[in-house]
Order: sequence, then C-alpha cells, then structure tokens
Amino acid sequence: MLTKLMLPEILELIEVGDGETLSEALDMWQPADIAELFADLSAEHERAAFQLLHGPQRTLIFEYLDRPTQHKLLESLEPADAGALFNDMAADDRTALLEELGEADREKHLKTLSAQQEAIARSLLQYPEESVGRLMSPNFVAVRSNWTVEHVLDHVRRHGQDSESLNVVYVVDHDLHLIDDLRIRQILLAPVHATIEQLRDANYVSLSTTDSKRSAIEVFRRYDRTALPVTDENNKLVGIVTIDDVLDVAEQAATEDAQKFGGLEALSEPYATTPLLTMVQKRATWLVILFLGELLTATAMGYFEHQIAKAVVLALFIPLIISSGGNSGSQAATLIVRALAVGEIRLRDWMNVFRRELLSGAILGVILGSIGFLRIVIWSMFSNVYGEHSFQVAVAVGLSLVAIVLWGSLIGSMLPFVLKRLGLDPATSSAPFVATFVDVTGLVIYFSVSMMVLRGTLLKEMP
Amino acid sequence: MLTKLMLPEILELIEVGDGETLSEALDMWQPADIAELFADLSAEHERAAFQLLHGPQRTLIFEYLDRPTQHKLLESLEPADAGALFNDMAADDRTALLEELGEADREKHLKTLSAQQEAIARSLLQYPEESVGRLMSPNFVAVRSNWTVEHVLDHVRRHGQDSESLNVVYVVDHDLHLIDDLRIRQILLAPVHATIEQLRDANYVSLSTTDSKRSAIEVFRRYDRTALPVTDENNKLVGIVTIDDVLDVAEQAATEDAQKFGGLEALSEPYATTPLLTMVQKRATWLVILFLGELLTATAMGYFEHQIAKAVVLALFIPLIISSGGNSGSQAATLIVRALAVGEIRLRDWMNVFRRELLSGAILGVILGSIGFLRIVIWSMFSNVYGEHSFQVAVAVGLSLVAIVLWGSLIGSMLPFVLKRLGLDPATSSAPFVATFVDVTGLVIYFSVSMMVLRGTLLKEMP
Repeated sequence: MLTKLMLPEILELIEVGDGETLSEALDMWQPADIAELFADLSAEHERAAFQLLHGPQRTLIFEYLDRPTQHKLLESLEPADAGALFNDMAADDRTALLEELGEADREKHLKTLSAQQEAIARSLLQYPEESVGRLMSPNFVAVRSNWTVEHVLDHVRRHGQDSESLNVVYVVDHDLHLIDDLRIRQILLAPVHATIEQLRDANYVSLSTTDSKRSAIEVFRRYDRTALPVTDENNKLVGIVTIDDVLDVAEQAATEDAQKFGGLEALSEPYATTPLLTMVQKRATWLVILFLGELLTATAMGYFEHQIAKAVVLALFIPLIISSGGNSGSQAATLIVRALAVGEIRLRDWMNVFRRELLSGAILGVILGSIGFLRIVIWSMFSNVYGEHSFQVAVAVGLSLVAIVLWGSLIGSMLPFVLKRLGLDPATSSAPFVATFVDVTGLVIYFSVSMMVLRGTLLKEMP
Repeated sequence: MLTKLMLPEILELIEVGDGETLSEALDMWQPADIAELFADLSAEHERAAFQLLHGPQRTLIFEYLDRPTQHKLLESLEPADAGALFNDMAADDRTALLEELGEADREKHLKTLSAQQEAIARSLLQYPEESVGRLMSPNFVAVRSNWTVEHVLDHVRRHGQDSESLNVVYVVDHDLHLIDDLRIRQILLAPVHATIEQLRDANYVSLSTTDSKRSAIEVFRRYDRTALPVTDENNKLVGIVTIDDVLDVAEQAATEDAQKFGGLEALSEPYATTPLLTMVQKRATWLVILFLGELLTATAMGYFEHQIAKAVVLALFIPLIISSGGNSGSQAATLIVRALAVGEIRLRDWMNVFRRELLSGAILGVILGSIGFLRIVIWSMFSNVYGEHSFQVAVAVGLSLVAIVLWGSLIGSMLPFVLKRLGLDPATSSAPFVATFVDVTGLVIYFSVSMMVLRGTLLKEMP
C-alpha cells in the first residue's frame, strides 16, 4: 500500500503542523486508504492530523473511519467543528453515527446542526431501529414523466450535487408519489428529445421505510440494483438506499448469523469494543441453557450406573460416541441452516432433505462405526485393556456409532426446519444446541445398544 | 407476490401456446420475479413457456434462473436457439455458465456462437478459475482525456448499449492503458464543455485479471464502488466487474466459510444439487479426522479406568464436563474467526484477546461451575445416587468446570490466531475441531482435578 511508504513524511507534516501540504498529499489517495493510515497513527497524531485538514476532505475521511475512532475524534473537536462535520456528513452515515450515541450526546450534536439538517436528521432518527428508514438518504433526483432527456440531464447537472447516487433517477407525480425508476443508462442511451414517458415501463422495485434492513439485502441481490427508492405508507418517495450501505448491513448480518450459529447471542458491536461484561452475558445465556440441557446427560447416565459399574469399559467410549453424534449433527445443521438462509431450499423441501440425510447419515455412520469397530478389535489383539469380551464391546460401539451418526444427521437437518416452521430463526439450531440434544439422546442409544449386545456376557444379570 | 396470483392465467397461456400474450403479460414484471414464477412451474410447462418467449426476453429471464433450471432448459432447446441464447447473454454470466459444463458440452456450445462472441467467450475462459478474469465483462465505455463532457455523453449514447454498466466510465490513453475512472455523476454534474482532463484526479482503484474473486469483494466494500475496472499485467484495460456479480461471490464465500466452520469441506454447489456421494465425501473427510482425534479420548480414559471403576459416579459427569468445554470453545472460536475475517481484529491483537478470554473464560467457568456444584449438592439431599462422598464429588465437578470452560475459551480463541499465523484459514478451527481438541484435554483436566479432590475419600488407594 502506497500510504505505508509515505508514513514518515506524513508524520513530519503533522508534527510541523503544515495542514496545506498534508491536505495536498492526502488528496492523492482514496479516502478509504487515508482512513486506514489514520488507524496506524497514535491517538495524538490522529487528532492533530484531523484538525489540520479542511472541511470537505475532513468529512470525507471521517466517513470512512471505524466507529471507535469516529467517537474519539468527535470528542476532541471544538463544538463548532463537530457541528460543521455533522452538517456536511451524508445523511445516512450521520444517522448511523447518531443512533449509537446516548440520548444526551445525540441531542447535543443535533443542536449544532443547521435548521434544515437538524430537521432531516431528526426525521430519519424517528424510524424504527433496524428499519430501512434508518438506512436511507433523503437526497435523490426526482423527475417528471413529461420531461425530455435533455431536461433531465440539465436538472441533474443543476440539482444533482447532493444526491446520494446518480445511477438511478426516480419518476414521480405532482404529489411526489413514486411511479417509476429509471437507471441512468436508460437516460444516457436515449435520444435527447425523448420524454421520460416514452422511456418508462411502470415496472419498478421499491422499499418501504418500515421494511427491515435485512430484507433490503435480499431485494438488492434479487433485482441486481445499486440504489433503490424508499416510499412511505402513502407511496410517497422519501429517500433512497444505496448498495454500499447494504453491503455493510449484509456483513453485519452475516456476523450475527455466525455468532448465533456458534451458540451465543449476537453481539451488537465488534468483539474488541464490546464491554467485557456485555460479552460475558451474551455468552453466558446460551452457555447456561446448554449446560442445563447437558445436565440431563448426568440424569440419563444415572439410570445406567449399574451397567457402567459392571462394564467400566463402556465408559471409555462415551466421549467418542457422543462427540461423533454432535459432529455429524453440526455438519447437517450447518448445511441446512445456510441453505435455508440463502433460499436454496425451502420449508416444503424437508422431506427431500430427510431422505438425503437418512442415506448420508447411514453411510457416514457405517464409515465411523467400522473404524471404531476395527480400532477396538485390532487394539485388543495387543492389549487387554478392553477385557475378555472385547469383541462384543467392539460390536456394541460400532453399532452405536452407526445409529448415533445417523441420528445426529437427522436431528441436525430437521431441527432448522422445525424452528423455521415455528417462526423462529433456523440459526438458533446452533452447532452446540444440536450437539447437546444429540448428547442426551445419544447416551440412551449407546447404553440401549450395549445392553442388547452385552446382555449375555459383560452385562449378564447376577443370579 | 403479484406473479403467484397470475399463475392460472399464465398456465392457460402456456397451454394454448399463445406466446405473444404470454410475452406481454410477463413484460410487466421484473425478470427476477418471472424467474421465480418459472421455478414454480412443472418441468414441462417451464420448457413450453420458455420456448414461447422471444429472443431478448428469453435471454433476460434465462440469466435470472437458477443453475439447474438453466441446464435443463439448455438441453431442451434446439441447437440454433441455444446458440442464439448464448450469443445474447451477458459475457460474464455466460462464462459462469460455461465454466460449469464438461469439456465436450462447452465446446459444443462455444461452436454455436458468432465468431466475435466465441473469441470473447474463449478469452474469458482462459483466465484461472476463481480469478477476477472469470468474473469480468469485456463491455465497458472508455473515453480519452481530451474529450469534453458533451463528447463523452454523445459517445455513450452511440456506443454504450452493450456496456455492462454505465455508472462509471474509464479514461484510457492511446494504447488502452487505464489512467483513471470517473463515476458518471462526475460527468453529469460537470459543465458540458469541461474536458475529462479537467475532471479527472488520477486517483483510481482497479482490479487485476489474476486477482482472486474473493479479494474483489473486499475492494468493492472498501471503496464503495458499483463497478471496478480490470487490467492485465501491462495495465491495459480489459474488462469491468460489476457489484451484482460480486454480491453473488460474497454469498458463495459466506456459505463456504459457514460450511468450513461447521466442520466439513465446502461444497461447490448448492446442497440440493450436490450429488449424494460427493456430499458424503466432503463430510466424511472431516468427520473421520475428528473421529481419529476423538479416539484419543478413549486412550486418555484408559489411563483412568481404575479411578472410574472405584468411583463410577465420576463417569456420570463426563458428557457434561466435556460438552461445557466444547461449547465455550465453540463460542470463542466463532467470535475470533469472524472478527479476523472481517478485519475487526488482526494477528497482532492476539495478546489483547488472550487477556479478554482469560477473564471471560474465568467468569463463565465460575458461573457453570457454581451451577454444577449446586446441582449435585442439592440433588444429594434428596437422593443417594451420588453416594456418601457427594460433597467432594460436587467440589471436583465444580472445580473441573471452572478449569475446562476457561481452557475451552482460551483454546477456541487462540487456535484461529495460530492457524492464521501458519498461513492457514482460521475458519479451519471449526466448532467441531475445537470441541474435539478440548474433549481430549478436558478429560485429563477432569480426572486430574478429581484425583486431587477425592484422593482421601472415594479414590483412596487400597492398602
């Protein structure tokens, strides 16, 4: 990266306080790269550099900084400078920053805005959290259907400066009702005297202010758009959402899904900045639930205590048996949760999945069962650790593995369907959740199979 | 969805073979919605509908169909129709389809293309799989720096029809070397007589044909672009990549990451269309590796067989103990793998993470240990299942839980760093992998703690 090489020069400019040269030097890079360079500076240098920069450049770089750095810099700025920064920020980025502040801080910053920007900021903040309203920018280009292409291009040149995107223009009626969207390519390719009416097809895709942010990801992906219009309950055009913001939402959503699947409540902030106790609490909740579930294994095993006392050798294979069930369950759950999430399979496909897993689980079970069986048989040729009935033990372990791997695959694949059917998030059937479920039932399978196989030998009833 | 309501009418049009009305009716919807409607048709209706449609509409809908449907329809088309379809398809979508076909099928389809399209298709297919070259479209708008805005708009109007995106235009020199990119907004906002030279800032972001598809996702996200230019080894502009294709790559990459973390090799196709034996093989590999690792638990427990024989009660808590370690390890691994993947934390942060996990793990361990301890103590008041030394058993289980949850958190959080340091994918430290590792070591911890606590009572050496 070019910027790393320049670091010593940049540092010198900061130290001598030469804002003009610094600003010129930084102008040669992308804001995203400058933001990364900022991340490598000490807190002091960072603050000094930021104060040396002028208005628009400062705002541009600020929008690319990570959230903790933004908060730090905000606190270091004079109120007037902070106000100017907030005033210049893109409305959607500003909402994202303001919504994370406490009530008091938010009010403080809102009051530093111009009357117009304050009204915009407040109106955006009044949409529900996690709604498309919080993601949108109220700056867009709207045109009327009787305009010609020439008129539209003129209008864009004069009024498009603040628009969040010029890749799409929106056709509205006299009451600002959305009636169509036109990609800029349709305008650019049309003869200059064509009217919008001639170009438009009344076929458009839009979001509603109250849609969830997550649902917006799906719409963007499905219709291959780079910007989508947002309408209120009266179909009035109130803003647009651009794909760069949706990409960030998608990344955040993927992180939350991964965390849920890993068996903890989703963190709302990055790992490194989540307060320790918040993180412990998010992890403890599920860990305790899983622990309480897992306590049933102790109860289940209580019933088999006599068998274990008679055949201690059985205890040696407990971890092997239950973890094999857990692992196969985790694999199956991963496949199905993800396939449901991206829409590759739907609720109605459960029967097909069941059949596939019945077969896959059986094959995988036979593979692991055979290895387990052979391990015990071969080991017993050289050692007496498994006792005189080692062959029967091998049969019991092998058969149990077949049954438990099959069982794990079925539970792991069906649980996501059940959860989705109940209206819950399929990702709740996390790897640890499936493993816990399979542990308890797996033990019962193991001891039942062992009792059948070893009834005549190791587990013979005393007279 | 509107289209569902229309299904009976659509079906009738298909059955009477009224292609014209069908085409008109479908024209009112987005291609993505029509593609979904196709998914609900029987194979026969699907084929019939597809044959009733005319050229461009057919191609447009085809591009939105899922891969298996595309293959089915291709096979059902006359060679000439299939050729026309391939000829009209966007070059990048065509590459994606062709690269999945076998050698013979691919050649067959390539031969049906026009000479020009065949050359394009072949040149794109010659880039490495998973490279940006396979993702790009050779259709873009290139301009020269001495052109005026008016000239550029004229040029776009005449030659932009086939361009994959008109959101960005690319500035090149006489040898087609890329010298800048300009968002269409910069052109639209500029006075018509300004020259490109005046607008451009020599500050651009580009991809190389040999970059990996995955790395393109990061560049798009970082620089907030909707299209990026692709250059060859001589910095010649050879194509562009648009964000819609990158979104698909990102979804695929997220699926592969989820699958790796779920403890299986990533599938290269959707769950439902992956052949059963391929899927079994992808799952069996890791399942067997984990199983072999887990066999060590049987070995480890072999060393404690005498302890178990003397204190069968200890066996009852084995699943509880090891699963608690596995679950806390899975949580920690999830957090760190994901934070590393999105760049929230870096390799050099490992010490901070270690400190955080030491503290979190200790707190979580104390929580679970206390519950475990109380469970045994309280239960023993009403039952004799844990024997006369139940209090010492409770102490042993409680202390073991503290140690194992702490241990699991540390292993789960540090393993991703170790793997990354070794140049491996951190996601390889999947939940099952961490759990297996913690199972083996956890048993040793459990029995060691138990021996210390119970030395004077349950595990007293016989004289």
